[in-house]
Amino acid sequence: MATIKDVAREAGVSVATVSRVINKSPKASKASIDSVTKAMKDLGYRPNAAARALVNQSTNTIGVLVGDVSDPFFGTLVKAVDNIAHQAGKHLLIGNGYHQAEEERRAIDLLINSRCDALVIHSKALSDEELISYAHEIKTMVLINRHIPELADRCISLDNYKGAYLATEFLIRHGHQKIAYISSSHHIEDADQRIEGYKDALAAHNISLPASYLELASPDSEGGEEAMTNLLTKSLEITGVVAYNDNMAAGALSVLEENGVKTPQDVSVIGFDDGLIARYVRPRLTTIRYPIQMMAEKAAKLALQLAKDEPLEQEPMCFSPTLVRRDSVDKAPTH
Amino acid sequence: MATIKDVAREAGVSVATVSRVINKSPKASKASIDSVTKAMKDLGYRPNAAARALVNQSTNTIGVLVGDVSDPFFGTLVKAVDNIAHQAGKHLLIGNGYHQAEEERRAIDLLINSRCDALVIHSKALSDEELISYAHEIKTMVLINRHIPELADRCISLDNYKGAYLATEFLIRHGHQKIAYISSSHHIEDADQRIEGYKDALAAHNISLPASYLELASPDSEGGEEAMTNLLTKSLEITGVVAYNDNMAAGALSVLEENGVKTPQDVSVIGFDDGLIARYVRPRLTTIRYPIQMMAEKAAKLALQLAKDEPLEQEPMCFSPTLVRRDSVDKAPTH
Repeated sequence: MATIKDVAREAGVSVATVSRVINKSPKASKASIDSVTKAMKDLGYRPNAAARALVNQSTNTIGVLVGDVSDPFFGTLVKAVDNIAHQAGKHLLIGNGYHQAEEERRAIDLLINSRCDALVIHSKALSDEELISYAHEIKTMVLINRHIPELADRCISLDNYKGAYLATEFLIRHGHQKIAYISSSHHIEDADQRIEGYKDALAAHNISLPASYLELASPDSEGGEEAMTNLLTKSLEITGVVAYNDNMAAGALSVLEENGVKTPQDVSVIGFDDGLIARYVRPRLTTIRYPIQMMAEKAAKLALQLAKDEPLEQEPMCFSPTLVRRDSVDKAPTH
Repeated sequence: MATIKDVAREAGVSVATVSRVINKSPKASKASIDSVTKAMKDLGYRPNAAARALVNQSTNTIGVLVGDVSDPFFGTLVKAVDNIAHQAGKHLLIGNGYHQAEEERRAIDLLINSRCDALVIHSKALSDEELISYAHEIKTMVLINRHIPELADRCISLDNYKGAYLATEFLIRHGHQKIAYISSSHHIEDADQRIEGYKDALAAHNISLPASYLELASPDSEGGEEAMTNLLTKSLEITGVVAYNDNMAAGALSVLEENGVKTPQDVSVIGFDDGLIARYVRPRLTTIRYPIQMMAEKAAKLALQLAKDEPLEQEPMCFSPTLVRRDSVDKAPTH
């Protein structure tokens, strides 16, 4: 493949001149633009992004860290960032952190070393201190689904507590008292905040339940199956189930059906996220909507504003979940 | 932020020496390694991937082009490539092509210009000629879900024809004759090959159906709803439906249910892909398994082998779909 040196030789100019032409420097003369463009074409030379980035100090890239891109929740996040990036003529570099500190650190370092113009980071395993240190180093770094008071103007977060409170209260308003909670076994703040919302909603209605109504499992459909199986095994006479996310709720619905327990006649189930699966399980899932698309767009715009040193608008950074009513919640059975 | 020049000044060496230390060149002396390492630490200098890539001609990155990373099918593909990349100490650069020629071309150019060590490309809109030209330029480029005879040893493909043939024949063996096909409106070869498989299976069993049994719509659940609605509107007395993918099948199931048509008692439905949704719709979807994870792992390994100039194993490059039997297909109604 032709190099920048070959182009310089062919065009009869210096490497620096070729670099100026490639990078559209105003210092490049009309004559050098013409001769370099012709030489590049003749030699089939493809301008090298790495070389261009060294001069421009820009790679035209937005870096995104997510938990796992194969999870549709993160797929939606990445797509929303890509839409905003696309409008700004940028492309994405994506890393998976798998909610593990070492993986998240490695992925963020790679994105930083790749000189991304802006970063949208979904980190759950790193400490506030470590993220603050990254944020001080990288002025264009925005956090999504995380709230760190010291970085308040660069954090886009969701009120997880409110979402679980809403879900639990919706069941209580339908007459349910024995309400189980199926949570994620990942040690992330979302899980803690949602459990707190569930417990506070119960307490606000003077409902007291033992710890056996709480089950932890992996935040996917298999985990939902496992947690629901455990709940049934404990003979708790549950009439309502609040799930950490839609995938766990879908797993729970499967187990209930296989055990001859009707949803919502015998047991009501409510999810969290409002992903694609919520509309396709039967009964259709009543759930809490996580506005991840809107949040990811906001995060991408904010990161690009920071990259351009634009003044930031004073807009809300904490988003609210809302309840989506479908068919998986009904009145508590009266027997 | 400190630059490589600052490090050179602080260490009392040339920029070239700093570069040699960063790139672990055998030419770097022990003394220069020590002084440069200390200077980098004192100044908080982070080795720059762009600078490193220029010297090494390697970015430690695998580039991946998919249709749309927010589609779970492509999420699975990306995750499988990431697993292989991770084992090889590489990270991913991901681009979306949205099955449009201009987008695919732009994304591939960006990946090439970013000097990825290896490329795994899912391209549906570009011509064979254009992909051959790319492949000649980039020796580490592997195509997935595409077969181009001239690039046979770098194409990982699926026998789409066989998949749709299997699906259609499965319905025929259950006594169905009036079998509709819900296809994708995207102009991609997968769609053509599957329609051919459907038609040939019918012909092999002497079943002749008019064109009105074929519906085209977007390859998602909304498209499946639209196509199924159109089929019902035409009063065709259909007893079986073959869908282009599981998402379209899920949309079709919804519309059937809303119209009081029971699956599988009145109408049997068969999907394609065996994605997560196939296990969570009701009835559970009988479908054709697309071994995308296995194929993506194979593609990533092949691309890395090409990057290392390793001899290629003589392994099968065309994968076969298989039938997964669940609950959405039953005998044709006898009335």
